[in-house]
Amino acid sequence: MGLWQIDNTLRESLATAERPIWLLVQLGRTLSIGGIMSNTGSDELEITLLPSGRRLSILRGGNLLEVLRANGFVLESDCNGMGTCGKCRVKFESGAPPSTSIEARLLQTEEIKQGWRLACRHDVVGPATITLPVTQEVLKTKVQQTEPLQETELNPGASVESLNLTPPDLDDQRSDTERLSMESGGEVKLSLCLLRRIPSILRSCHFKVSVVKEEGNLIDLVPNDHVQGLYGVAIDVGTSTLAVYLVDLETGEQLSAAASRNPQVKYGADVIARIHHIQERGRQGVGELQAVVLEAVNVLLKQLASEVGIQTSSIYKATVVGNPTMIHLLLGIDPSAIGHSPYVPVLCKRFSFQADEIGLGISPCARVEVLPAISGYVGADILAGMLSLSMRYRDLVVLMLDIGTNGEIVLATGNEMLACSTAAGPALEGGSISQGMSALAGAIDHAQIRDKELIYSIIGDAAAVGICGSGLVDLIAELRGIGLIDASGRFCKTEHPLSSRIERKDRQTLFLITNGKSRVYVTQKDVRELQLAKAAMRAGIDTLMDRAGVSAGDVERVCIGGAFGSSMRVGSLLCVGLLPPVQREKIVAVGNCAGQGAKLALLNCRMREKLEELASRTEHVELSFVKSFRESFTKHMRFPEND
Amino acid sequence: MGLWQIDNTLRESLATAERPIWLLVQLGRTLSIGGIMSNTGSDELEITLLPSGRRLSILRGGNLLEVLRANGFVLESDCNGMGTCGKCRVKFESGAPPSTSIEARLLQTEEIKQGWRLACRHDVVGPATITLPVTQEVLKTKVQQTEPLQETELNPGASVESLNLTPPDLDDQRSDTERLSMESGGEVKLSLCLLRRIPSILRSCHFKVSVVKEEGNLIDLVPNDHVQGLYGVAIDVGTSTLAVYLVDLETGEQLSAAASRNPQVKYGADVIARIHHIQERGRQGVGELQAVVLEAVNVLLKQLASEVGIQTSSIYKATVVGNPTMIHLLLGIDPSAIGHSPYVPVLCKRFSFQADEIGLGISPCARVEVLPAISGYVGADILAGMLSLSMRYRDLVVLMLDIGTNGEIVLATGNEMLACSTAAGPALEGGSISQGMSALAGAIDHAQIRDKELIYSIIGDAAAVGICGSGLVDLIAELRGIGLIDASGRFCKTEHPLSSRIERKDRQTLFLITNGKSRVYVTQKDVRELQLAKAAMRAGIDTLMDRAGVSAGDVERVCIGGAFGSSMRVGSLLCVGLLPPVQREKIVAVGNCAGQGAKLALLNCRMREKLEELASRTEHVELSFVKSFRESFTKHMRFPEND
Repeated sequence: MGLWQIDNTLRESLATAERPIWLLVQLGRTLSIGGIMSNTGSDELEITLLPSGRRLSILRGGNLLEVLRANGFVLESDCNGMGTCGKCRVKFESGAPPSTSIEARLLQTEEIKQGWRLACRHDVVGPATITLPVTQEVLKTKVQQTEPLQETELNPGASVESLNLTPPDLDDQRSDTERLSMESGGEVKLSLCLLRRIPSILRSCHFKVSVVKEEGNLIDLVPNDHVQGLYGVAIDVGTSTLAVYLVDLETGEQLSAAASRNPQVKYGADVIARIHHIQERGRQGVGELQAVVLEAVNVLLKQLASEVGIQTSSIYKATVVGNPTMIHLLLGIDPSAIGHSPYVPVLCKRFSFQADEIGLGISPCARVEVLPAISGYVGADILAGMLSLSMRYRDLVVLMLDIGTNGEIVLATGNEMLACSTAAGPALEGGSISQGMSALAGAIDHAQIRDKELIYSIIGDAAAVGICGSGLVDLIAELRGIGLIDASGRFCKTEHPLSSRIERKDRQTLFLITNGKSRVYVTQKDVRELQLAKAAMRAGIDTLMDRAGVSAGDVERVCIGGAFGSSMRVGSLLCVGLLPPVQREKIVAVGNCAGQGAKLALLNCRMREKLEELASRTEHVELSFVKSFRESFTKHMRFPEND
Repeated sequence: MGLWQIDNTLRESLATAERPIWLLVQLGRTLSIGGIMSNTGSDELEITLLPSGRRLSILRGGNLLEVLRANGFVLESDCNGMGTCGKCRVKFESGAPPSTSIEARLLQTEEIKQGWRLACRHDVVGPATITLPVTQEVLKTKVQQTEPLQETELNPGASVESLNLTPPDLDDQRSDTERLSMESGGEVKLSLCLLRRIPSILRSCHFKVSVVKEEGNLIDLVPNDHVQGLYGVAIDVGTSTLAVYLVDLETGEQLSAAASRNPQVKYGADVIARIHHIQERGRQGVGELQAVVLEAVNVLLKQLASEVGIQTSSIYKATVVGNPTMIHLLLGIDPSAIGHSPYVPVLCKRFSFQADEIGLGISPCARVEVLPAISGYVGADILAGMLSLSMRYRDLVVLMLDIGTNGEIVLATGNEMLACSTAAGPALEGGSISQGMSALAGAIDHAQIRDKELIYSIIGDAAAVGICGSGLVDLIAELRGIGLIDASGRFCKTEHPLSSRIERKDRQTLFLITNGKSRVYVTQKDVRELQLAKAAMRAGIDTLMDRAGVSAGDVERVCIGGAFGSSMRVGSLLCVGLLPPVQREKIVAVGNCAGQGAKLALLNCRMREKLEELASRTEHVELSFVKSFRESFTKHMRFPEND
């Protein structure tokens, strides 16, 4: 114990070091100098990841899912490692551990033989080569094509004004702040954070500065020759997708937009899984979730700014929308109470604060305005969408749908506005489906039966590895159309040639889509999951229509928001009965109308009152209370009869 | 290099450790495990400090002054280590380094022989035993005796109210904040920091909470059975002394008060030295000075709270006064521009922020209100003092003095108020005086000649080691009285027996006060320093009186604030001519009237307007502009003729 052998790498480092060196040593484990790490024990293992070929050196004993996540790989895991969703599949090319009983249930025998395992079920106990599904690589999400910026009065409440202050002298000993206030038109409020920056800015430019003001607050000082303009961002924090829009607040022009996946998905696919994570981890969990989403938003902000050639520090206003849980997490507020009855958020009204209070990467004293929500599940995103649609479809009877794990439904009749949220479950986003996945490369996103052949499209330049929500709805609608699925939802063999694709395997019935590189199929259970989801949506819609005394024929527009609206085929939605029987031409995809609403509020601060008015005029219908909802739900578990 | 010898202490630690141990190793220097440190090289030295006997292990080569400060010893150094003030004296009992030319100038030959050196002039190059002057030990400063709390309407703007909220259910899904707002009487504003705490507090007490509000802001939530009351603090950040007053905001009663030295003194005795430090260190310097003063204030807050038996978290409001530089530093704002012409502060008006923005140790969302100032040198302390005195001496002609390195003077005539600041220099605080010191143990604080004998008093139970401002003024007044100092300020030998104490040593004339354990004396140069200081004060007073057309006979009160007012003998001030010839009974010590004013503003938020009115009514006279000031200054360099 008294003497130590130092290995060759270390010896070399020591011999060539020019300054005293600090050694950080953990006895019996590893010995490192600076960046050099050498293995002295046997606790460190190497894992090779395909297709990238990346190698990870990791300590024995870590959970594989956590290790992969910690190294930046986004693996889907709806259940967040609980071993119930079967999504975190990886394929061991070598070094596969024995399979578990959970895998026997969630994977097919053949797959297990091929080396497929669930990452969450295994600790790292030996070296291995592992293939990650293509889709697990982090993909840059495309911003949905948005309709042109809606017309609104340009009144952002923010302004930049050049001042040529006279520097102080013995005749004019006014303080810096008094000088600024008086020369920029009277009393302004300002924060400590700006106050600290004032003396150096003023003196760096000999008092030739521009002041940026936002509704009576002085929020920045910029030397006149550094002024880049006055920009704002609208931020839509979706459960799956983050979207940011960069707008010139002086012209009202949208300069650019960008989106990425919400990295919180690694803690759970939906709000409930994320709340579950927080309940396990407490305050620290809130911090983790806040940190990852902020980091991702900040990356988007930098990307947009560099695209347009400005500094993020000249972004002086932000409006934020999202569902209440996402908003709570962005602000670092524990959303747990939203997760269980009576589903109460901490915050519902409009709330504003300074960017640096959460570390949002724009001008530090810029005001960030979280737009108001209606309830714990009908959030700022829905209300902002209503704002945008109310301006487009004034006085029409409009049904607005946001389809996801939670489906939000708004019915505006001109007289009244009703809103509800219904737990559709993750099926429509590819969750809880045996080979379901998000709309990423390798996902089957559309299917059609033409000339008795099944044709389908795959996202990206990839082989099919799974099926996403739109693909699932299409496929089931088509199979229902040719009678391979009956009105109760059961697979039925008929004389149709595609009947041969209905197989019985591992005690379940499935429909095989492709037997290519991967086997992709839909099981009987998957059909049931879709029935649950569409029944929940439809029962919500019917409940609001009943309440308002509106029939399907009265509906003048059905607006489907988000990626779902743009990707889903209207015919399929009608065929499975998710939508009431309205004329196809009345059904429109409205893109990210939440983002549109956030932009409206960014460009015109009067929209605030409009949002508050909308919120107060909207009746939130809590479906748990409505008896007819349950009846309608049971009824709509069935598919509509074929015409 | 490949093998390492580990010494016995280390070996033992390794052998008995139960878990893997991290070794932190700096090659060739020291080797440490946990708290155990053993000397493997020769770069570490031991210094023994007397009288405490404390031993310090320090690396060779550090500057002695910095090393001592880093170890918590407060050494005076008006020049902050520049080698010009001669204050950071320490006595080497062994291991004295060779003396430097600066010491030859600032210390007496005899002192150098005895081992006295200036800490700032020497690096640690060998082991040594060093005696620190008694006064350098950190002393707990006594709060000045304050007059009883002035009467004012009790209107702190803060309140605590118990609510018995009904917990949410499916019939009442209001958000937490909406529930709180509506049940506590309508819309409240609240900060993100409180918002984050709301859900857990509400649920920890089943919604039986009390809300603390301050002027429309919700600043805290407390479970009903944890409510301790509603407290406030008035904080006076002096250049030398910090004072904090704890007040019950429900009764208006002052519960306790405490004071300590401002630990920033280690970076320089006065505001100019501290600004100098910042100019050398930049932003980091501001941070250092802010951190030490905040830490000291927080210690006082904890001390007061524990004395009274409450938690600091039930302190819900703070008012702060201090000179502008102190206020800037407390807020972390660079005060550099105050340090040179045209002496412009960043902030002058009232400014409020949340306690957690600077880390003030009270309730995190409590409002901290920095009271307004008049100019870069006539600060919130003076204005608060004016508030307090204006209520006591309404409509009288009052001269208010704050005597220090910067002397602030206010003249209120009933019609008008004039204020100025004059650079008196540090002499009146014991600075720039060869054996001057603060009013700490060992300082001669009073002197009198009675029956041809010099008698003097010493602060604390200690031998005389120096002289503080009040002692200096007394001594010079007395020597002037018996003619040992003439009107021009020169020492003159007369037939008075004390003439024998006038000595000529090391090319300067001095008056020996005591030849006890330490030699304490006043030099000819010290008398000149006092003349400069008193001339500056007096010329400032005369300038304001001229401007207002007021003569000495018109003055109805001379109020002397702070420690100076309580410690200085009125006769001496008149004798040296610092004060104009007014009747002695009109001269009063007003204690910490700045603190009094801060308490008034704490108890009654209406005082805010009163302060702003006072500020706007007060004319700030910049003495650099007033020709008669220079003339008056020259004239008052002389002492008044003896009667």
